[in-house]
Amino acid sequence: MSKNIYIIRKEHFNAAHRLRRTDWSDEQNERVFGKCANKNWHGHNFNLIVTVKGVPSQETGFVINLTTLSSIIKKEVLEVFDHKNLNEDVPYFKNGLASTENLAIVIWDLLEMPIEKEGGKLAKIRLEETENNFVEYYGGNEPF
Amino acid sequence: MSKNIYIIRKEHFNAAHRLRRTDWSDEQNERVFGKCANKNWHGHNFNLIVTVKGVPSQETGFVINLTTLSSIIKKEVLEVFDHKNLNEDVPYFKNGLASTENLAIVIWDLLEMPIEKEGGKLAKIRLEETENNFVEYYGGNEPF
Amino acid sequence: MSKNIYIIRKEHFNAAHRLRRTDWSDEQNERVFGKCANKNWHGHNFNLIVTVKGVPSQETGFVINLTTLSSIIKKEVLEVFDHKNLNEDVPYFKNGLASTENLAIVIWDLLEMPIEKEGGKLAKIRLEETENNFVEYYGGNEPF
Amino acid sequence: MSKNIYIIRKEHFNAAHRLRRTDWSDEQNERVFGKCANKNWHGHNFNLIVTVKGVPSQETGFVINLTTLSSIIKKEVLEVFDHKNLNEDVPYFKNGLASTENLAIVIWDLLEMPIEKEGGKLAKIRLEETENNFVEYYGGNEPF
Amino acid sequence: MSKNIYIIRKEHFNAAHRLRRTDWSDEQNERVFGKCANKNWHGHNFNLIVTVKGVPSQETGFVINLTTLSSIIKKEVLEVFDHKNLNEDVPYFKNGLASTENLAIVIWDLLEMPIEKEGGKLAKIRLEETENNFVEYYGGNEPF
Amino acid sequence: MSKNIYIIRKEHFNAAHRLRRTDWSDEQNERVFGKCANKNWHGHNFNLIVTVKGVPSQETGFVINLTTLSSIIKKEVLEVFDHKNLNEDVPYFKNGLASTENLAIVIWDLLEMPIEKEGGKLAKIRLEETENNFVEYYGGNEPF
Repeated sequence: MSKNIYIIRKEHFNAAHRLRRTDWSDEQNERVFGKCANKNWHGHNFNLIVTVKGVPSQETGFVINLTTLSSIIKKEVLEVFDHKNLNEDVPYFKNGLASTENLAIVIWDLLEMPIEKEGGKLAKIRLEETENNFVEYYGGNEPF
Repeated sequence: MSKNIYIIRKEHFNAAHRLRRTDWSDEQNERVFGKCANKNWHGHNFNLIVTVKGVPSQETGFVINLTTLSSIIKKEVLEVFDHKNLNEDVPYFKNGLASTENLAIVIWDLLEMPIEKEGGKLAKIRLEETENNFVEYYGGNEPF
Repeated sequence: MSKNIYIIRKEHFNAAHRLRRTDWSDEQNERVFGKCANKNWHGHNFNLIVTVKGVPSQETGFVINLTTLSSIIKKEVLEVFDHKNLNEDVPYFKNGLASTENLAIVIWDLLEMPIEKEGGKLAKIRLEETENNFVEYYGGNEPF
Repeated sequence: MSKNIYIIRKEHFNAAHRLRRTDWSDEQNERVFGKCANKNWHGHNFNLIVTVKGVPSQETGFVINLTTLSSIIKKEVLEVFDHKNLNEDVPYFKNGLASTENLAIVIWDLLEMPIEKEGGKLAKIRLEETENNFVEYYGGNEPF
Repeated sequence: MSKNIYIIRKEHFNAAHRLRRTDWSDEQNERVFGKCANKNWHGHNFNLIVTVKGVPSQETGFVINLTTLSSIIKKEVLEVFDHKNLNEDVPYFKNGLASTENLAIVIWDLLEMPIEKEGGKLAKIRLEETENNFVEYYGGNEPF
Repeated sequence: MSKNIYIIRKEHFNAAHRLRRTDWSDEQNERVFGKCANKNWHGHNFNLIVTVKGVPSQETGFVINLTTLSSIIKKEVLEVFDHKNLNEDVPYFKNGLASTENLAIVIWDLLEMPIEKEGGKLAKIRLEETENNFVEYYGGNEPF
């Protein structure tokens, strides 16, 4: 049996955002999004945990070199989102909602190909918005 | 492909319990349950981590509103177990053992329907009894 | 000897801010404040850890009731800063810099009197901006 | 100048307790102690962090051997409190309240002499009752 | 439906290692393994998290007694690797690379049978090398 | 009153070491240093937490720019110790014991002047060797 194994790298970024629909009244926004609807933004320290699947190389013992994986995450995600405003500074949520769920899906799409070019297979994204609120995304798959 | 994603909420409660069979001798209880058999109870800070599966709403970007999910957990689980005695104050372990495994199964049954009424699907319960002892339950499924 | 003891409560809030002087050029702001100068804001999950000093009451065993202390922090600090923009939504940094240092000093001034009214003495504020950046403030005192 | 340094050991124990005065009515107990007054007990995972002060030995580089310090804590504190009921199983709170403050003072008294016999000086006790509630005790001293 | 549940135990060990091929030049080792190639070793605090699958016993409420599981991990893994040099003190990496991936596979093979003898089924190994680098192994299976 | 405040930066490094006196027998080394005496080394993930004292600048709101502080720690400490053997690769413990206590004192001496050159005053070093073993050093002072 091939020895499939999962290698995981944790990175961090800080960003501002708000959850607010311009086609809704202030009342409706506050009813649905609560304090997250605040016009003047709020922000978070996001933890991003990226899982890559593969068989360890005979030559190096690595599924993917973690230095390489860390560089990919920094280039593709942290340079885009770190110390930024998710609604204003990036194109992904101009016409959509910067929920943690949607942010995780965008991050998957940014990471999938660059990781594949290095011989790994992106298997899972975990995005931690606060100490108590997290999202996990498996590229649309349903492992459970 | 539908964008299935998992949203996760962490809550806490403190409770007393013991692991002790009344049909066993003190010696047998201590041999099997060790210090957990202490007649006069001991207790824990439990972390409860609840995973809900779904497709983010186009309207809100949410699988389930985390304020709603948190309220369900507080109403269905924390009001029942927080600062309580698992053997004395709740009906679930009168004739059974308040092991972390059994507690996780009871919590699943308390949460499944209320979450479904809000449009989510309960996918996983993680219950942390101490810094080093945890249980995970997927409703009886075996994802791995 | 009186039994002085320190009781500590940890709370959380999320906020947006930026470090940027309007009397400086973009270049000067970026040279001094780096990514924190981003015009469109960024944000953090702040941990606030409040230490109160006193002698435990004979009647209750408490220096201060932690429910009371938590309520004071929520009323005086979290209602003011949680899910807010530190530069736009509160009066404290209109003409100053919303650095973690300055924020800790503002929080001390908000908490000192309400805690004293409950019979406690504010002894220390710890403010955690990220996993690696923290500030501690003892009301201007220098314990070490 | 002598090179005073502080060496710190973290240990854990689990215990049940309640905050309840027998000379008070149920209403008064609940008003003051809230959920902690529950007759049937609740419990916690306590973290105990012990700081010992001294000058490192030329011979070993140690202020105190951490294996020795850990053994002292296990013998003097964990064997007494772990998996026990703080009100029922130990003599310290028969006529008093098992608040975290009072528990920290009791633990100081249990550890001070045994640590001194090994050549160290007990400098600080930190007792963590939950993720958000802590107590620190310096033997009655007021470092800040 | 049978109530499959997962019980998890976390343990720790400290070890030295290096990532270095003797058939490669210093330059090649450093290019691939970076600082991890240092001839004189470096080391880590490893967290080992072991998941066992099963149906709780009617008699005890346990999938596997955590005291038993902890003893197995201590005997089979910690006695072998704790405070050891992974390249010099154990036979597993004499002719191979002590990468976290390979270490996780070796640990699986050490734990699988002893856990099965106690009636449990090893389902997952998680090995944490640093705060940001982790490996997960499911015995070669691919749950996602 | 001047507004003295403490700014804190946490960094990490991994290193190998052993506690072993060449002038002692194997038996004596093992009796005093236990598993830490292993000839072939073991290692740790060290957390280094550095506290700098000062009054926030009117111009920047900073006691010291955390980017500067982080750079100083990286240059003076991490480049020296990260992924190194504390006994073999650095000059500080050739004739002494690489205990956590002694390592903290060495780190203080490496950081004190570079931080002072940037206008800050080094106030405290905390060095975490494992999850349960820590050292704190105040430059020889005794704040408590």
